[in-house]
Amino acid sequence: MLEISADDQVCTASAETPLLDIWAALPIGLYPPFPPVELPGGLGGLVTRGGFAQTFFFGAEVLGLSFRAPSGRLIRAGGRVVKNVQGYDLTRPFVGSFGLLGEAQQVTVRLRPGLGYAHHARPGTLDQPPEALPRFLWQDGSMLHAVHFGHVREVERVMAAFGGEPVDGSLDYRAAFPAGMGVGEHGPLWDLRYRWADGREAPEVPALFRKVAAAL
Amino acid sequence: MLEISADDQVCTASAETPLLDIWAALPIGLYPPFPPVELPGGLGGLVTRGGFAQTFFFGAEVLGLSFRAPSGRLIRAGGRVVKNVQGYDLTRPFVGSFGLLGEAQQVTVRLRPGLGYAHHARPGTLDQPPEALPRFLWQDGSMLHAVHFGHVREVERVMAAFGGEPVDGSLDYRAAFPAGMGVGEHGPLWDLRYRWADGREAPEVPALFRKVAAAL
Repeated sequence: MLEISADDQVCTASAETPLLDIWAALPIGLYPPFPPVELPGGLGGLVTRGGFAQTFFFGAEVLGLSFRAPSGRLIRAGGRVVKNVQGYDLTRPFVGSFGLLGEAQQVTVRLRPGLGYAHHARPGTLDQPPEALPRFLWQDGSMLHAVHFGHVREVERVMAAFGGEPVDGSLDYRAAFPAGMGVGEHGPLWDLRYRWADGREAPEVPALFRKVAAAL
Repeated sequence: MLEISADDQVCTASAETPLLDIWAALPIGLYPPFPPVELPGGLGGLVTRGGFAQTFFFGAEVLGLSFRAPSGRLIRAGGRVVKNVQGYDLTRPFVGSFGLLGEAQQVTVRLRPGLGYAHHARPGTLDQPPEALPRFLWQDGSMLHAVHFGHVREVERVMAAFGGEPVDGSLDYRAAFPAGMGVGEHGPLWDLRYRWADGREAPEVPALFRKVAAAL
């Protein structure tokens, strides 16, 4: 299931939908809150891990979702229009919960407009991020990748500051994570939040959050 | 405490900060996710009630906050930049929780840019909302109010569809809610979510959400 509303600038898809399927389905000039790369678990996996490569707050771009809690309960949280959202919303705790709250079923993300788009790569590391941050920034081995969209001139400015060469097409990183995507010291990918490694290791869970999970 | 970062397009303020103080402090061309009206409880009250008059998803515009849970625990949730947000985020359950999760201390909201701005009012009711929705829409007695910002031409288009007359300055609705702002059948204000009444009545709380609140 993959539905895009250009008018409302939202996309709703089943959790297993590959990220690149969403990119392929978008109309010209609308962009999702993730870069054009394929990662384990599709959209649901991405949301469960709290995003990849975003230099903005990914949690705010997830408008709603349904998930199966560890108790077996199906929980619908958030929405896609204001009428569906009456408060008491459990969307954001799910984003970045690394499976502790259960398994995503369907996810709605916000789309944003832009007439310009670019993806560049160059040698570099995240220790020295560019001054003008692109919307998406990640390190793959010794290469730094930047993806930006928005006003044409703003994209030109960000990419001029970043340097590097244009990357055509999309990247599939799934083969780097045969045992699933988690955090870890020796992973092949970095972003500003984590180093991403093969396996399902999650960041340390605050005790308070465990209590919330147990309540669901 | 009221801090505005035009570069990051965020505003962080203590919970009691009046909404109109935030409007007054904003640089030209940046707007908050609420209309230029004063409501009980300032920014913290607004977030606790889940917003007022938004025709978009207000919960996604609250990037982070700190709150005192009923247990007395001070909880910091979300953030204002991606580095601060490592998942396990309790921001969104607080938005629209009507006090069930405790009392807000400090709130960070996203600001959005726009060169055009307009506030119109005309006789009408929310039973018949305009086709081109403004960002903020509410009913005050027998008058409908619309506030929009964004591209100049888009603002013109939305206001032409809405009609009515320009409203100068801001509105203070606090006197209409001497016992606090809650939901109720006979309140003076409506938006697309609720009819807002004097008193602190909250919408019905799902049992699941009570369990989450008890865990905090």
